[in-house]
Amino acid sequence: MPENIIMSLLAIGTVAFDALETPFGKVDKIIGGSCTYIALAASYFTGKVNISAVVGDDFPNEEIGMLNKHGVDTEGLQVKEGQKSFFWSGRYHNDMNTRDTLVTELNVLEDFDPVIPENYQDCKYLMLGNLTPQVQQTVIDRISERPKFIAMDTMNLWIDIARADLDKVLSNVDLLLVNDEEARQMTGEYSLPKAAKAIMDCGPKYLIIKKGEHGALLFGEGKTFYAPALPLEEVFDPTGAGDTFAGGFMGYLAKTDDISFENMKKALIYGSALASFCVEQFGPEKLKALTQEQIDGRVQEFVELTDFGKNL
Amino acid sequence: MPENIIMSLLAIGTVAFDALETPFGKVDKIIGGSCTYIALAASYFTGKVNISAVVGDDFPNEEIGMLNKHGVDTEGLQVKEGQKSFFWSGRYHNDMNTRDTLVTELNVLEDFDPVIPENYQDCKYLMLGNLTPQVQQTVIDRISERPKFIAMDTMNLWIDIARADLDKVLSNVDLLLVNDEEARQMTGEYSLPKAAKAIMDCGPKYLIIKKGEHGALLFGEGKTFYAPALPLEEVFDPTGAGDTFAGGFMGYLAKTDDISFENMKKALIYGSALASFCVEQFGPEKLKALTQEQIDGRVQEFVELTDFGKNL
Repeated sequence: MPENIIMSLLAIGTVAFDALETPFGKVDKIIGGSCTYIALAASYFTGKVNISAVVGDDFPNEEIGMLNKHGVDTEGLQVKEGQKSFFWSGRYHNDMNTRDTLVTELNVLEDFDPVIPENYQDCKYLMLGNLTPQVQQTVIDRISERPKFIAMDTMNLWIDIARADLDKVLSNVDLLLVNDEEARQMTGEYSLPKAAKAIMDCGPKYLIIKKGEHGALLFGEGKTFYAPALPLEEVFDPTGAGDTFAGGFMGYLAKTDDISFENMKKALIYGSALASFCVEQFGPEKLKALTQEQIDGRVQEFVELTDFGKNL
Repeated sequence: MPENIIMSLLAIGTVAFDALETPFGKVDKIIGGSCTYIALAASYFTGKVNISAVVGDDFPNEEIGMLNKHGVDTEGLQVKEGQKSFFWSGRYHNDMNTRDTLVTELNVLEDFDPVIPENYQDCKYLMLGNLTPQVQQTVIDRISERPKFIAMDTMNLWIDIARADLDKVLSNVDLLLVNDEEARQMTGEYSLPKAAKAIMDCGPKYLIIKKGEHGALLFGEGKTFYAPALPLEEVFDPTGAGDTFAGGFMGYLAKTDDISFENMKKALIYGSALASFCVEQFGPEKLKALTQEQIDGRVQEFVELTDFGKNL
């Protein structure tokens, strides 16, 4: 973690338990949740990561301690006595790009009322991980001064059943991160550049479309940038890769405090690098102990993968 | 077309009729065929493109004349009196990445015996478009001095029914071009880097895996390079995009006469640029009248799409 702590990043989302099945193995109950991945990834860039989330009293203290050791402030993490943490269970298909949800137990998420402690109010970068649009909007409303840069994630479910709420949040953020399917679902446009235009017409100046193993596209200011995913020999477990990508992206923006399109390109590469680690082990395991050298090495692999010299 | 004609490129494949149906429209009978696309694309790079192929007497003279006007030598194009040209008809699905074959009439292809005229014997670059592995091998055998660089394409059908023949050709070429599905089918490996290793163990030093709208990967010398596809607003008709890509790639290699990995990266970008034009109209229409300015402009779009500065 670099010492030049610059701008505080607030992440919301889930802190939860996952049970996962991939072609390579199975785990019964490990920690997961969008906020966990976002915070861990961002912690490699900025020492000031705050989270607002909720768990039950079944959530292990040592895992909260693990987050704290990464410099993550958990004052906004509510622990509900007598209640259970959010639980998700899924099985990945052989292609690792598609999965079936086996179980979703909302538990504490059902009436999640996000708390924004006083010392989170200086939030300059806000990452709204995937939650109901209503909760995402509540977080925006509870920060007294609008953050410099707000990014949000969402999912097919909210596009289906809470579109009006989603559109409201969308009009209040700077960047939306969705996958290609969601971009198409939101707009009815198969062409991603057309879908991008339609989404940016709803509010956000910038859009990232995640394409899993096929990389990610950044749209904004009339420009398009493409970051590939690293071609990995083993993708062990894709869970959390999108959140890790978002966390790395936002962490890099917060560290550099530069929201130009040029700097967002670099942030995309760092996000992709972090995501490439995430998929190499079950859950967030690999994200718990990365070194700066590993991250720099991975980023260098992106340079080599895409550099074709510019004298064409 | 640049004036610095350097090395001769020989392309084999089909010169044929296609009937196409895409979500954007329908054409009943237009010219197509792998060799047509390869030759047209390559003609923008080198003035010495030779083809060996076969058509029936139903094939329009003016289309052969069109190839000649592009500098394509058609001495090796056999015209079979009283026979019909190869005909393929297909319908694309809404995602434009998958298609159904409606009709395949082999006609003259059934007993295609490739002719290599004397003045093709100086062939330095050989592009074996998709045909039976046996015909591909025959062409290699009929060139007295081994070309400097041989590339081949193939398809799922030959992987299924002519694997031994295919493996023989594979052991005689420098580069294989296949799509991601074919790479997986050939090796049983889902991971593309693993599939690449397995394929290169069979002979070719280099491998290109085409991923359609998701770009293309080049493997070789222990290195990997990734070229994205341009995110296009409209993909009108993907027919021939892979062959156009191969033609642009091989044309650029022939023009520069440089088969280093570094130069192949640039060739990949030029191939992708040519392919991005191909899909914008039905059949090879758009490839018939490109300007150097259009090509350079498209290549510049690739630079902008992927350049993130290297000071990370």
